[in-house]
Amino acid sequence: MERLIFCAPILGICALLFAFYLTKKVGRQDAGTDRMKEIAAFIHEGARAFLTAEYKILIVFVAVLFILIGVGIGNWVTAVCFLVGALFSTVAGYIGMNVATKANVRTAAAAKDSGMNKALSIAFSGGAVMGMAVVGFGLFGAGVIYALTKNPDVLSGFSLGASSIALFARVGGGIYTKAADVGADLVGKVEAGIPEDDPRNPAVIADNVGDNVGDVAGMGADLFESYVGSLVSAITLGVVYAKESGAIFPLVIAALGVLASVIGCFFVKGDENSSPHKALKYGSYSAAIVVMIGSLILSKVFFNGFKEAIAIIFGLIVGLLIGVITEVYTSGDYGFVKKIAQQSETGPATTVISGIAVGMQSTAVPIILIAIGIIGAYSFSGLYGIALAAVGMLSTTGITVAVDAYGPIADNAGGIAEMSGLPSEVRNITDKLDAVGNTTAAMGKGFAIGSAALTALALFVSYAQAVGLFESGINLLDYKVIVGMFVGGMLPFLFSAFTMDSVSKAAYKMIEEVRRQFKTIPGILEGKGKPDYTSCVAISTQAALKEMLLPGVMAVLAPLFIGVVLGPAALGGLLGGALVTGVMLAIFMSNSGGAWDNAKKYIEDGNHGGKGSEAHRASVVGDTVGDPFKDTSGPSINILIKLMTIVSLVFAPLFLSIGGLF
Amino acid sequence: MERLIFCAPILGICALLFAFYLTKKVGRQDAGTDRMKEIAAFIHEGARAFLTAEYKILIVFVAVLFILIGVGIGNWVTAVCFLVGALFSTVAGYIGMNVATKANVRTAAAAKDSGMNKALSIAFSGGAVMGMAVVGFGLFGAGVIYALTKNPDVLSGFSLGASSIALFARVGGGIYTKAADVGADLVGKVEAGIPEDDPRNPAVIADNVGDNVGDVAGMGADLFESYVGSLVSAITLGVVYAKESGAIFPLVIAALGVLASVIGCFFVKGDENSSPHKALKYGSYSAAIVVMIGSLILSKVFFNGFKEAIAIIFGLIVGLLIGVITEVYTSGDYGFVKKIAQQSETGPATTVISGIAVGMQSTAVPIILIAIGIIGAYSFSGLYGIALAAVGMLSTTGITVAVDAYGPIADNAGGIAEMSGLPSEVRNITDKLDAVGNTTAAMGKGFAIGSAALTALALFVSYAQAVGLFESGINLLDYKVIVGMFVGGMLPFLFSAFTMDSVSKAAYKMIEEVRRQFKTIPGILEGKGKPDYTSCVAISTQAALKEMLLPGVMAVLAPLFIGVVLGPAALGGLLGGALVTGVMLAIFMSNSGGAWDNAKKYIEDGNHGGKGSEAHRASVVGDTVGDPFKDTSGPSINILIKLMTIVSLVFAPLFLSIGGLF
Repeated sequence: MERLIFCAPILGICALLFAFYLTKKVGRQDAGTDRMKEIAAFIHEGARAFLTAEYKILIVFVAVLFILIGVGIGNWVTAVCFLVGALFSTVAGYIGMNVATKANVRTAAAAKDSGMNKALSIAFSGGAVMGMAVVGFGLFGAGVIYALTKNPDVLSGFSLGASSIALFARVGGGIYTKAADVGADLVGKVEAGIPEDDPRNPAVIADNVGDNVGDVAGMGADLFESYVGSLVSAITLGVVYAKESGAIFPLVIAALGVLASVIGCFFVKGDENSSPHKALKYGSYSAAIVVMIGSLILSKVFFNGFKEAIAIIFGLIVGLLIGVITEVYTSGDYGFVKKIAQQSETGPATTVISGIAVGMQSTAVPIILIAIGIIGAYSFSGLYGIALAAVGMLSTTGITVAVDAYGPIADNAGGIAEMSGLPSEVRNITDKLDAVGNTTAAMGKGFAIGSAALTALALFVSYAQAVGLFESGINLLDYKVIVGMFVGGMLPFLFSAFTMDSVSKAAYKMIEEVRRQFKTIPGILEGKGKPDYTSCVAISTQAALKEMLLPGVMAVLAPLFIGVVLGPAALGGLLGGALVTGVMLAIFMSNSGGAWDNAKKYIEDGNHGGKGSEAHRASVVGDTVGDPFKDTSGPSINILIKLMTIVSLVFAPLFLSIGGLF
Repeated sequence: MERLIFCAPILGICALLFAFYLTKKVGRQDAGTDRMKEIAAFIHEGARAFLTAEYKILIVFVAVLFILIGVGIGNWVTAVCFLVGALFSTVAGYIGMNVATKANVRTAAAAKDSGMNKALSIAFSGGAVMGMAVVGFGLFGAGVIYALTKNPDVLSGFSLGASSIALFARVGGGIYTKAADVGADLVGKVEAGIPEDDPRNPAVIADNVGDNVGDVAGMGADLFESYVGSLVSAITLGVVYAKESGAIFPLVIAALGVLASVIGCFFVKGDENSSPHKALKYGSYSAAIVVMIGSLILSKVFFNGFKEAIAIIFGLIVGLLIGVITEVYTSGDYGFVKKIAQQSETGPATTVISGIAVGMQSTAVPIILIAIGIIGAYSFSGLYGIALAAVGMLSTTGITVAVDAYGPIADNAGGIAEMSGLPSEVRNITDKLDAVGNTTAAMGKGFAIGSAALTALALFVSYAQAVGLFESGINLLDYKVIVGMFVGGMLPFLFSAFTMDSVSKAAYKMIEEVRRQFKTIPGILEGKGKPDYTSCVAISTQAALKEMLLPGVMAVLAPLFIGVVLGPAALGGLLGGALVTGVMLAIFMSNSGGAWDNAKKYIEDGNHGGKGSEAHRASVVGDTVGDPFKDTSGPSINILIKLMTIVSLVFAPLFLSIGGLF
């Protein structure tokens, strides 16, 4: 039975091979007209430039942390695993984004020449490369490291490596994409009155690059972190639960999940008569069913019973339901978004208020679902069950990320179609694909938050075990724990404030640059002068990289500071407090943002006066407020809560040796 | 030494006598012209009508809860104390609001005939009646009940009575005032283009009534609850700490605080050459100094040392510093508000984003201050010290409420001056008084949140003691505690969503009514037709009362449900989670709202284009979003976290006997 551990690296490699196959498949497709190729090259280059610049900063950050780990806890194996985790996350992100920036133009070309089905297939294949790279590198890395060392502590280093990259990818990507988006919209659409994705807008390329660095690379790194984190916590707690089998079981489940995701990918088939949304859902659900059945069998093999499988199934179902409920709160087909659209009739203030109210209200059901998941998983398999639920939820990450990354590719395809002046039928197809992408993006965000919550919780329990608080507990009546909880609860608010401010500052610079180009480049608005795309790309790149440092450093230093000064119990309080407020804020901000976005689209579809009406203007304000909510601050909080927990876990030996200065 | 307990009821009565004296003093002043008297009568009647209608609903609610307590825990003495607490809070609120609606017109008259000093004195005297009524009834009630029963459990019933009234006063008052305000502004100012407080606006009386029911009666009930709650928790923990002396000490400190507040009131003297702000600060600081010195002496007498006094001083200083820091984040004299004003230049979206960022950022320093306060208080006197810090912070409630209630009186005075067409010099004086009121209101809100946090925390510890978790602790690794924490952390978000929605709905009705009157009453906009004020007052009243029920019932039922179904430990988690997210949300929403308000005023003072500019229009959107933030949802959260904790404390015997069904 213990031999089954080799499933993990083997299926990891299978996933990577499948990613390689898909990459080649996408690459073989026609890339369209010269104009399309030219625009795609701009986007591709912009994205690469950002990643390269980001990596340069990351090398310094990673080197510092490497030494901190080695010196701080005296275990250089952990430090090396940290490097490997950082490297794997980086490579996965690079591969995924590289393909995404090739799939976009090919999706547009397929929409032009072959219709919806082919276009859907290419966009989804592009996304699936990211998905397979995430699970491939994650599973391979975790499997090999555990097989070699049999030491879960060392594995936490791998997880921290993944988290560090995720932080910068999500925060930097989030700032990048919204600075470009807000800048392009406020000057281009509002001031100059040119449509979205118009090639005359100098920020338009940066905007399209942003979709890739934020929604593809950032999201991928986020889920890579969750994926690895859930495995690490399940392995840590598995050793306590059932020694070797308890540690290997989650790895085998993850391997099963990879298989299920690959199978699910083959279920995503376009059908001219039905919506692409259905095809994507179909793929996800079939993967989930495969995992459910397989986990029952594996649970019988490993533990001679079904209790552990039930914990996994609880996690899986909660994850799917959170996706569904997110759709209810953020899709124009349901009452909440319609209410916001109606409130737009009385102006921007009521639009903003009702959007905030919807977002806040939307925290309730996901939290109750998570609570039921925790109760269910615990009842069947104790604290190990909570970690297994996280593994279950994340087992189908391969296809989840594929569906998620499909969105920005379709979005980009639309942009390229518009910029290359393709006929409106093509744009119609890409618009349909993009609309589905908006829904899946909101669902993906809900899933990312839910899985981050469960992962962070499982890691939190692992942390308690690592600092020896498993028996004595973390007592909420201990004043240090209370202080930790207050400070921890405050951090997501401060972090969100920082990231929102960063978007404001970066967008401001972008606005100035676009205005400058409109003024100084002759004939630019008549389509005769050539806009300088690269200067806008450079502004977004530099601003994102500069602004991501403060929140990033805060996320690493805050737990270290509290752990060293007030001790491990206070740090436990901090992690608990951050987890609770972080999850609420993330759900609130993501869903408010998604709901505003779709309220605007609902009005643009001809309701409440349609485009150009007062209500539409108000809804644009809501959408602009929602941009940093849903694409920068909200998703970044996922990383914050996971990263702080994993930092605490890795540095546990340090806190134990110092034990609180105060 | 135990005899000193009689200080409590005696000084309680002194406070009430002082309130009576001030009431007479205010009543003796000239009420101005016939037109002024007529308008004042409208406001007075509107406020009374609201309170009467509210009390009718409250009687039902109180009766149900009375039976629930008696039957649920089988202690009818506690149930009777609950009735007394509810009655005292009601009477205090009624007295305070009654005087406030007399002081407003007399302040305007004094500004007309005698100048700033006299006007300040009357407005402050009016506010001081509310302050003295709060501490008088609170101290008298707590002192007498404890002297008679010597049973802290019974006393928690008194505290629950106070909390129940506070809930409805704060939530109902908050909905009332913002529905009227938003309704009056959106139709009157924006659509019809008539100035603020214009008598042609049918909602103008409701708007002025709202200031009284929300900012006087609601705020008073909020602090009455904190005041009583801090005493109850200190008495409960005092018995554990040092038997009888530990229980009596906080009562004597509160008595000292009443004395200090009365002394502080005499320090509030207008001076034509200096700002009224200074006079009010002077009064508050002198009261604080009296308590500091007195507590050192009393601590020596009671415990033969200074440790307990230091805990009190920690609380007092933290309370003052939170006020100061709130001013920094919300006053136009500092950079944060100026930044929001600057962002208004790029439209309402950036105004809203930067205001939210400022509010979120503003959580950091108060939380660190509270953390330092907890560490300091605990280090010197253990958990009892935390309760003492809350008592210390609230010891000067008499003058704090006086300063707070001064604001809406000055605001009303300005409204009356405007509506009666008094000359602009008069309006200048009331504007100055009002501007000071805005600052003190923001500081008062910060203080109300800080004291609510500390009180809820102290009550939380008392709860743990009551359910026998003092020794075993409330373990953050217990899955039930985790579930409780998630659910608890979600409740403030849900509660805020409900209250914001309520404001939207109520405001919508108000908007429709004002529009109807403008359309159907001939000559109304030329000042010839008479607007129907009472229908607007009725709309606000009915909407507020209807809308306050759902959040109110939720606040009572949520802890009962979790306590009964998941048991006392899970309920402990719920209270912890709600406390953490509740405090953050309350600070965030109050300060965002305050900052937007003053950013608008800053622009109106001639910056960024002044009144009528694009920036001004954007800042009005921010201010409107901030209205329910700062005056409805934010302050209502204070009540939520305190009420849920006190419900848990009172029903502790029930949870113990059932112990969790699950």
